[in-house]
Amino acid sequence: MWKYDTSVVWHKNKTGDLRAAGNEKVEVATPPDFGGPSGKWSPEQLLTGAVGSCLMTTALYYLDRYGVDLQSYVNKTVGTMDKTPDGLAFTRVDVDIELTVTNDGDVEKARKALHSAEKHCPISAALLCPVQVDATVNRD
Amino acid sequence: MWKYDTSVVWHKNKTGDLRAAGNEKVEVATPPDFGGPSGKWSPEQLLTGAVGSCLMTTALYYLDRYGVDLQSYVNKTVGTMDKTPDGLAFTRVDVDIELTVTNDGDVEKARKALHSAEKHCPISAALLCPVQVDATVNRD
Repeated sequence: MWKYDTSVVWHKNKTGDLRAAGNEKVEVATPPDFGGPSGKWSPEQLLTGAVGSCLMTTALYYLDRYGVDLQSYVNKTVGTMDKTPDGLAFTRVDVDIELTVTNDGDVEKARKALHSAEKHCPISAALLCPVQVDATVNRD
Repeated sequence: MWKYDTSVVWHKNKTGDLRAAGNEKVEVATPPDFGGPSGKWSPEQLLTGAVGSCLMTTALYYLDRYGVDLQSYVNKTVGTMDKTPDGLAFTRVDVDIELTVTNDGDVEKARKALHSAEKHCPISAALLCPVQVDATVNRD
């Protein structure tokens, strides 16, 4: 069992500091669409970023396990929230991964690693809504 | 419908940068328990922090709506991940809220606002696992 501790301290004007021991603080706020200031991380962006970063960390695990010589990795992640009969809810998260490998022989391995990452990402598994992953594997 | 865009760019050694336009970047990494470095935000901490910060922003909305004169607000949020038959999964998130109000008459309103926040927090609503909220309302 693993436990992840964080805290949030409110400041004025719909903003606060998100902290975890040893990490740099993250300034958080209500999203601008709901009356908060711009330039701060909203909970909705953090959730979206949790999915995107988990796809990365999980992919790195499988890429390493499959012996892929990775050159670059980037993903864009879009979380969609909508009004539903039960109130505001995330209805989908879309992750677009682009990575580059050094060797021809690693292209297929990288695809398999990404498939495993998609299947086993614990943050995706925590969500009620679907997480759609699209991946492009390039050979440098 | 609202969309939240983020991106993650990998650096070496299980670390990367999480970005959203206009915000400061957040350094992310595989958690230390899974071979990553300490001092960076893991996806699991980000998910936990998304819940904690959403409870704050949603509470602020209802506190304002109910006319509560808020003096301070802090919450601690613990996300628990465990091995399950389906692999690693979040099994619960516990949020411990402590807030202080200025006026006696606001104590009960604040409790109601927190109850509404718990019910309507969109990040909690996005999760498969239960989110347990405990709240203490103090009069300054």
